[in-house]
Amino acid sequence: MMMANGEAVKLAIAGLGTVGAGVIALIEAQGALLTDRAGRGVQVTAVSARDRARDRGVDLSSFEWWDDPVAMAREADCDVVVELIGGSDGVAKAVCEAALDAGRHVVSANKALIAHHGTALAERAERTGAAFGFEAAVAGGVPIVKALREGLAGNRISRVHGILNGTCNYILTEMRETGRPFEDVLADAQALGYAEADPSFDVDGVDAAHKLAILSSLAFGVAVDFAGVHVEGIRRIAPLDLEFARELGFKIKLLGIAEKTAEGVSQRVHPTMVPVDAPIAAIEGVTNAVETEGDFVGSVVLQGAGAGGGPTASAVIADVLDVAAGRRAPIFGVPADALATAQSLPMSVHEGAYYVRLRVIDRPGVIADVTAVLRDQAVSMESIIQRGRDPEEPVDVVMTTHDTTEAAMQQVLAGIDALDAVVEPPTVIRIDRT
Amino acid sequence: MMMANGEAVKLAIAGLGTVGAGVIALIEAQGALLTDRAGRGVQVTAVSARDRARDRGVDLSSFEWWDDPVAMAREADCDVVVELIGGSDGVAKAVCEAALDAGRHVVSANKALIAHHGTALAERAERTGAAFGFEAAVAGGVPIVKALREGLAGNRISRVHGILNGTCNYILTEMRETGRPFEDVLADAQALGYAEADPSFDVDGVDAAHKLAILSSLAFGVAVDFAGVHVEGIRRIAPLDLEFARELGFKIKLLGIAEKTAEGVSQRVHPTMVPVDAPIAAIEGVTNAVETEGDFVGSVVLQGAGAGGGPTASAVIADVLDVAAGRRAPIFGVPADALATAQSLPMSVHEGAYYVRLRVIDRPGVIADVTAVLRDQAVSMESIIQRGRDPEEPVDVVMTTHDTTEAAMQQVLAGIDALDAVVEPPTVIRIDRT
Repeated sequence: MMMANGEAVKLAIAGLGTVGAGVIALIEAQGALLTDRAGRGVQVTAVSARDRARDRGVDLSSFEWWDDPVAMAREADCDVVVELIGGSDGVAKAVCEAALDAGRHVVSANKALIAHHGTALAERAERTGAAFGFEAAVAGGVPIVKALREGLAGNRISRVHGILNGTCNYILTEMRETGRPFEDVLADAQALGYAEADPSFDVDGVDAAHKLAILSSLAFGVAVDFAGVHVEGIRRIAPLDLEFARELGFKIKLLGIAEKTAEGVSQRVHPTMVPVDAPIAAIEGVTNAVETEGDFVGSVVLQGAGAGGGPTASAVIADVLDVAAGRRAPIFGVPADALATAQSLPMSVHEGAYYVRLRVIDRPGVIADVTAVLRDQAVSMESIIQRGRDPEEPVDVVMTTHDTTEAAMQQVLAGIDALDAVVEPPTVIRIDRT
Repeated sequence: MMMANGEAVKLAIAGLGTVGAGVIALIEAQGALLTDRAGRGVQVTAVSARDRARDRGVDLSSFEWWDDPVAMAREADCDVVVELIGGSDGVAKAVCEAALDAGRHVVSANKALIAHHGTALAERAERTGAAFGFEAAVAGGVPIVKALREGLAGNRISRVHGILNGTCNYILTEMRETGRPFEDVLADAQALGYAEADPSFDVDGVDAAHKLAILSSLAFGVAVDFAGVHVEGIRRIAPLDLEFARELGFKIKLLGIAEKTAEGVSQRVHPTMVPVDAPIAAIEGVTNAVETEGDFVGSVVLQGAGAGGGPTASAVIADVLDVAAGRRAPIFGVPADALATAQSLPMSVHEGAYYVRLRVIDRPGVIADVTAVLRDQAVSMESIIQRGRDPEEPVDVVMTTHDTTEAAMQQVLAGIDALDAVVEPPTVIRIDRT
């Protein structure tokens, strides 16, 4: 479904928040450049948002206004519907479905929607021959979707992992640099606009999990499986953990990690100890980074701004230019009916090393009791550090283990938590040296 | 020029070194995957190389053998000619020209050819409607060409810089870690296969300059201008410079840096002091990294293996899949006749800070004489370190300056070199804090 060369490609934009305004500003700023790039102009014809009166810093007067974005998606004079409403269901989904059913191309920045309904939307698009682009849904302006779908397409990818949520990375960076607790730094991040008023999608790891599910599908050629992602956030990370991490030669990052083996696909988002000299450890603040491992290309890393109006608009326009120039690739890298349904590996079969922080009453025999629990589950300890001495008072003890299974580790944690001398539930952080 | 869907895309490969063998191995290994990705198979039909008898670890028996690669490019049963011969002129150029003139698509890994003749080849391709891909020519398997041409196409790029030569980065990493001199480490790199028997293209910066000229064209939409690149290599870097760099908080990297301003385009390859905590400082060994600065997307970094059969084959296949799937973009991001001829800014107008190492006779008044030379050129000194004391014997003195112009700095260097107490020509390394 190539479109005629020469005539401008027409966009209808649903949702006029920071990203929508950024897309309009970009098109206004780079008109001639976009025409050179795509062989035709790019033009906004219609827009829809909740509040028509709000000042968005861009001139909307030349665009047709629609109160109903679904009607706009179906009926407006456009080639491409740009969905920037957000949310996994409701209006955003209805807009995309209406557009695709009408054979209109869709470009979306909506990670929740694609994580939950990506495969079904791809099938829907294929039925009418519409394009469905979502470069902006993962890692903001970083062109990782195109890299996996086209640039690295000659490889079997065995692993993709990265820092997928800038808010969490900002908070962890600040906590490490200032020693302040999670709640304080989160409040600052909210004041600075780096975190939402309701921060749970970010700090509980859900946003990173959405992006990881999309990356897994692109990397491994499997159906999008958000339900298969094990998700933990960063609320339980204490300044003390960041101190111990430093002492042990690690940084703590919220990583999304997806791996494909002969057994199936594992997907997990959790705080992770990474060696200070690992490339991913150098990514600080709101930056995102994605590392892939391909059988021919080896390791490739892409990094850049993971959010914000400008970077996300850049990614939206990349998809628009692909449509305008008639460049098409299978939506998840292979046709929807070729996407495999992979065995989703449960977290219990995960193997790796662990960091465990305990708060215990400092009395003779406690360490012996703790280490006996490990021995009983055949978990091998790598190191143990007791911070300070304070007889009959609580002190902090940190252990690291050699590689073991998550299942054994969960037994260990239950056993430790049941000890009288252990005064609060253990904090666990997985170690990843790869 | 879309090709019919379904029928396999046929390749004729000219040049069967490591990369050629890698391409054949990749196609053999990933047959079904490539078909899913491109909607059609990928098949080698013809090959040509100098020595038919050589064992390359891949089975060539099902391919048509051509002694004359130019005849193959013109006449073989193929859709795409893959040029892996190398060299800026001669046979490689003749192969590409013959193929493009015949309307055959060309995929090339030949950075020298594209740096010298890229614009003319793009015009040639446009005349017959052939595709001309060269993802493999820059940074091996890292999909930076596609990122600049498509993924970041909504941006005006103001700067692109990076570590573009793995051999130099390996040598500098080794020198820093072991304290050994350039010649020793180079000999090791040659033994390990990281450096050629004639290392001059790598260590004198020419290879990096080829890649930088290609990146500049893609980033800024200007004609490829290899002659406009200022080139310096790493032969003069001494272990002492790496020690001083460490003391001053820097690492030394051979960087390629291209910038576009209202005045024109500057392109330069030279050893550079970068802050130890800059992202680019973390790139060690044979890895390549490219950082771009776009007006909407901000900074984006791509990194990965810059050479080798597997990574380069991965990039070649990415281009082949684009052809197979009918995905086309202007060869340098915009049509050849829209490539601007930018003013090439000479090195003399460069502004920045400098590191200068001197070997001087340790006697009263020498430092005063040296600093007087700086004062006379209005160059402001940031720091000066004298290493050791040894009256009437040579000692090492290192200075860093605040920002100044290259023209002033060249005057300073001439003035210092003329002093009696200065016993060898100063070593100069530019400092880049961006």
